[in-house]
Amino acid sequence: MSKAAFVAVDWGTSSFRAWLIAADGTELAESRSSEGMLHCATSGFAPVLRAHLTRLAAPMEAPVLICGMAGARQGWVEASYLQTPTRLDALHAGAIRVDTDGDVRILPGLAQARADRPDVMRGEETQLLGVTEADFTGIVCIPGTHSKWIRIENGAVVEFATYMTGELFAVISEHSILKHAVEAEAAEDKSGFAAGLASALASPTSLTNALFRLRAAQLLGFETRSAGAARLSGLLIGNEIADARTRFGADRPVRLIGAGRLGSLYREALTTSGFTVDECDAERASRGGLIKAARQIWGARF
Amino acid sequence: MSKAAFVAVDWGTSSFRAWLIAADGTELAESRSSEGMLHCATSGFAPVLRAHLTRLAAPMEAPVLICGMAGARQGWVEASYLQTPTRLDALHAGAIRVDTDGDVRILPGLAQARADRPDVMRGEETQLLGVTEADFTGIVCIPGTHSKWIRIENGAVVEFATYMTGELFAVISEHSILKHAVEAEAAEDKSGFAAGLASALASPTSLTNALFRLRAAQLLGFETRSAGAARLSGLLIGNEIADARTRFGADRPVRLIGAGRLGSLYREALTTSGFTVDECDAERASRGGLIKAARQIWGARF
Repeated sequence: MSKAAFVAVDWGTSSFRAWLIAADGTELAESRSSEGMLHCATSGFAPVLRAHLTRLAAPMEAPVLICGMAGARQGWVEASYLQTPTRLDALHAGAIRVDTDGDVRILPGLAQARADRPDVMRGEETQLLGVTEADFTGIVCIPGTHSKWIRIENGAVVEFATYMTGELFAVISEHSILKHAVEAEAAEDKSGFAAGLASALASPTSLTNALFRLRAAQLLGFETRSAGAARLSGLLIGNEIADARTRFGADRPVRLIGAGRLGSLYREALTTSGFTVDECDAERASRGGLIKAARQIWGARF
Repeated sequence: MSKAAFVAVDWGTSSFRAWLIAADGTELAESRSSEGMLHCATSGFAPVLRAHLTRLAAPMEAPVLICGMAGARQGWVEASYLQTPTRLDALHAGAIRVDTDGDVRILPGLAQARADRPDVMRGEETQLLGVTEADFTGIVCIPGTHSKWIRIENGAVVEFATYMTGELFAVISEHSILKHAVEAEAAEDKSGFAAGLASALASPTSLTNALFRLRAAQLLGFETRSAGAARLSGLLIGNEIADARTRFGADRPVRLIGAGRLGSLYREALTTSGFTVDECDAERASRGGLIKAARQIWGARF
């Protein structure tokens, strides 16, 4: 068995994932839970990390590198944003050390500090590092609660945009009148998704009208409730892609950092929208980015 | 004092308003409460109406004409939608009689039963009748939880569109991450509203990105939380108007059926967007429509 070198942690808003990584980059053990930033903000971060290190059987001297919301102002210790444009292989230089047992560091997020397009990310920058070569030029899409689109030129993030797609799906389907139009446990409905997507791509300024039409279509018997969730998903994802396509261009392949069902929906939607898709797994992206940054920080120990 | 002729009722989702109307159309008394459809769906409609009739001191024989959500499927008795295109002065013909004490009737809503643009309204059709002449041709905007835009030709509704503007403002500011970016009791912030409006009009496909930017702008110090609610309102109203302007055209005046602060915001936003605005009061519109329809139903008794 390879010798353990460090612990990689992706500490998000509502999830915690840690991997024990060997000097050659292979994964030796994994530990995950729902102890994300929101959970730890009240119960504390150090005890949660310690419990996972024990579970991983990590050596006492193994350093820990963390990415994600643990570095937010409301997280464990704030790791100030790096400002765009910034090279991804400079991320490690912005890592801050936590005043706790052992060598624990948190990677910074990225800020686009432009008054006309202010934007921020935490965690996705590490995924970007994980899936791009040092001279990468292209567009990356990371679907999620807050979907990100990123333009990278020669290894540097030059521009990005966040869309509230996933969060809007949740609040609209739980708290608006559309809760009567979607089923929580809806089966996958390919034609509903395709119809919502087509509507959004054809008429990208009409989102708030299209949302009401989803309800009206059911009242008038044109649609069924079982297709409601898929149609809502198609509308919101289509609206995101329609805008991003204009801003980031569909003339080159998009690298999609996705996972599971959401990743499949985006693959389908991006292809329908004229993109060539090059797909990477989201967890592998986080882990890969943490390994690259760890090698830059503790290179001598690898 | 003029002789009471009938009782006009605007029975909405969350509000009840009744007026005792004289034969010459003047208002003799008023009674209002928050006993809307949602309240009455569990406690019953008849007792609520009876209590208000007593409060109005309405004569036993005075008939009652109701518009709004009381006629929805989930209301008191369903008054089936009239289908567009339909003349507004034909509304009374679709009124249904309620099986209760006295002569109580409910006006129908309108449905646009087109598979590509399904839409419905209940209550607004009566306001439209109230503010338009028999040969009216033009565009009407009715702001609200579900804002309506209506194209009327020679007294007939030929097309309309509903935007979930008001409801999205509520669910986003209460249930999304933007709850940290808006203050519930925010003072009016004219420049925040104007900035949100300008952003939405300039980039009408970017709503779900603009929503996240509102939060990012505060994190990065470009904006303050006190301006958040006004900016969100400007973004959503601007997004609605940008789409409606394309669909309904800004080449002729828009008749705005508004009230209070929301009416003022729409007046400002419509003017900024290039419309000439002709404003009518929302309650007067409902009452006027009920009076016109009542004269057609019970003409002999006026």
